[in-house]
Amino acid sequence: MSIRTPQHHVSTSAALLDELRSLTPLVQSITNVVVTNFTANVLLAIGAAPAMVDIPTEAGPFARVASGVLVNLGTPHAEPREAMVEAATAAGQAGTPWVLDPVAIGSLPVRTALARELLNLRPDIVRGNASEVIALAGLGGGGRGVDATDDPESALEAATRIARDYGSIVAVSGATDVITDGDSVVRVSNGHLWLTAVTGGGCALGAVMAGFASLDDDRLATTVAATAVYTVAAELAASDANGPGSFVPAFLDSLHLVDATTLRARAVIA
Amino acid sequence: MSIRTPQHHVSTSAALLDELRSLTPLVQSITNVVVTNFTANVLLAIGAAPAMVDIPTEAGPFARVASGVLVNLGTPHAEPREAMVEAATAAGQAGTPWVLDPVAIGSLPVRTALARELLNLRPDIVRGNASEVIALAGLGGGGRGVDATDDPESALEAATRIARDYGSIVAVSGATDVITDGDSVVRVSNGHLWLTAVTGGGCALGAVMAGFASLDDDRLATTVAATAVYTVAAELAASDANGPGSFVPAFLDSLHLVDATTLRARAVIA
Amino acid sequence: MSIRTPQHHVSTSAALLDELRSLTPLVQSITNVVVTNFTANVLLAIGAAPAMVDIPTEAGPFARVASGVLVNLGTPHAEPREAMVEAATAAGQAGTPWVLDPVAIGSLPVRTALARELLNLRPDIVRGNASEVIALAGLGGGGRGVDATDDPESALEAATRIARDYGSIVAVSGATDVITDGDSVVRVSNGHLWLTAVTGGGCALGAVMAGFASLDDDRLATTVAATAVYTVAAELAASDANGPGSFVPAFLDSLHLVDATTLRARAVIA
Repeated sequence: MSIRTPQHHVSTSAALLDELRSLTPLVQSITNVVVTNFTANVLLAIGAAPAMVDIPTEAGPFARVASGVLVNLGTPHAEPREAMVEAATAAGQAGTPWVLDPVAIGSLPVRTALARELLNLRPDIVRGNASEVIALAGLGGGGRGVDATDDPESALEAATRIARDYGSIVAVSGATDVITDGDSVVRVSNGHLWLTAVTGGGCALGAVMAGFASLDDDRLATTVAATAVYTVAAELAASDANGPGSFVPAFLDSLHLVDATTLRARAVIA
Repeated sequence: MSIRTPQHHVSTSAALLDELRSLTPLVQSITNVVVTNFTANVLLAIGAAPAMVDIPTEAGPFARVASGVLVNLGTPHAEPREAMVEAATAAGQAGTPWVLDPVAIGSLPVRTALARELLNLRPDIVRGNASEVIALAGLGGGGRGVDATDDPESALEAATRIARDYGSIVAVSGATDVITDGDSVVRVSNGHLWLTAVTGGGCALGAVMAGFASLDDDRLATTVAATAVYTVAAELAASDANGPGSFVPAFLDSLHLVDATTLRARAVIA
Repeated sequence: MSIRTPQHHVSTSAALLDELRSLTPLVQSITNVVVTNFTANVLLAIGAAPAMVDIPTEAGPFARVASGVLVNLGTPHAEPREAMVEAATAAGQAGTPWVLDPVAIGSLPVRTALARELLNLRPDIVRGNASEVIALAGLGGGGRGVDATDDPESALEAATRIARDYGSIVAVSGATDVITDGDSVVRVSNGHLWLTAVTGGGCALGAVMAGFASLDDDRLATTVAATAVYTVAAELAASDANGPGSFVPAFLDSLHLVDATTLRARAVIA
């Protein structure tokens, strides 16, 4: 169980941000075709290096040398599905931290079965909205598509169960993000609604979590740090944007510009 | 036959815009890999919810619960091809309105054959440029790739024939968009050249048409409304942009900000 | 061997830019799923017409009528792999210039074998970073993913060997781009670091090279022109941007706005 206070999390997050930029972790993203470009640009902006190696026979070997891996089920075509299992297996063997984002699971059969198969490979981090986390835990029927129909707090039981059964950190996105290792629960209350008005707002956060996870074995701390940096940057961007369109470039600029001092001043972690 | 006057179309379009935002229709987009991100962001900006469920066994069941479906043939890989037929069939059975965008058909064999197969499933709306609509009606040889080599008026006979034979609304894009149900012809003269200077300008409009189609059974009215909102937003955006690059975020902002009053003041419908 | 002086290259580049805009070459891009949208928008902004025809049975016939073809190995799924070989073969037969971008080859097995197969089809232009060009020549082990771990000058021997053995122009990207036909070596020193802080900066240049290659049989001159226009536009954009996010729309605007006069004033070619 983590014994960090909220203030510890803020200062750790700031230190991890500096470390990320000095180490430029290589993040393999096997993600959906809607958000590939945005995800790669988010990683570059924050200071990581993206690589989308998503075909069988390449995905596994690459996962062994990558700093972190994201497996996102948004558009699970046959080749990437095979690559996901290969990458997750190899990551587990090699000690590469990997993130599972079970996009829109619940009633859709292919991704729901795949998510269970991947969960059994014990992801280091599970990231999703409340509906998805509840569905992954087998406690509900899932939402309609990618909508977050439930409050993150409603998924706390599901998140805790997954964390304890599979040894994963579970991060549930919402107005306040809820992150747990099965014992401690950390809440990050930064962010902006416009992050939900552009596609990939949640998906790209999963890639950022994979990058931060490579920096320290305290996965609760790195997941909190990724969330805090990402959502504080969203707040900074919103003040420069006129709508969801101008929010995207402003957000990438903010991810590039946000520093430890700003993070310390603005992060709201409880 | 619609008996709406142009002024009726303007006021109906304004009312439908408000309705779209209150209902947030869920639009399933099986579209090409070039425009997935832009299409999703267009739908979010205008007030709809995007979902790209594009694999066999998931696409059909999802089309039954979606508000509307877009089937766009821009990059017709094998899995999405199967998903398109599955989704169109399920949409037809469930009464979910669906849009066919026969991108670049004519001489390219796979998509041309697929477009005919899908046309026989009687799409609620067909959207394309003049070349594509002429090719779909079997009246010409198609253009070079995605270029609009013909004036929309030149496709009016083809559009009318498709509308009458398959019960579809047919919308032909150009400087003035021509939309017909086989009897009435409505022309929308808003828009901006920069909409043709970014990829996906036409493709994303198809997704917006699918969203509006879920709001009312008068498919001519909803297709006109989608076109008017989309092209008026383009005009608003062009005045804030320095070129095609800055046009994209400005356009997404405008889609988010355009309201019924602005639409009533600016829509040019004949 | 080219006998152009650097000043000849500058004036030729300016003339080719005007010619590109008057001819609007049709560029078929079989590229990776991360950069499709950006690549298409770059082509449109600069004045070319993009088409992504990337499936077997369509890719070959289309390559015969396209002005130029890009084959980029970033995410080599099975269908595009087959389409790449088909398109490269057809392009070679039809005299359509084509560009090979061997993204991240070296240790990744599928793309490395595919790159060698495609190289044997004698691409008109090979574009890559130093690691990739060295790996393609069989002289090194490749980098980690898409990173440019070597200076372009370190790949000059590899570039020269490929150029002589396969009759290709070889362009190596870096702070100074090095371009050779196996005899002459031209260096273009424009550009901006932010071009490496967004995904697809190199990939889209390959598509631009394919467009310029359609304008003249002097492929060294057209490749230098594509590089100069592209990197000068990046410089112009950087002065209008706050970070990598706002750089993207500014870059597309600059590609649209850059003219022969600006190019003559700013291009640094040696």
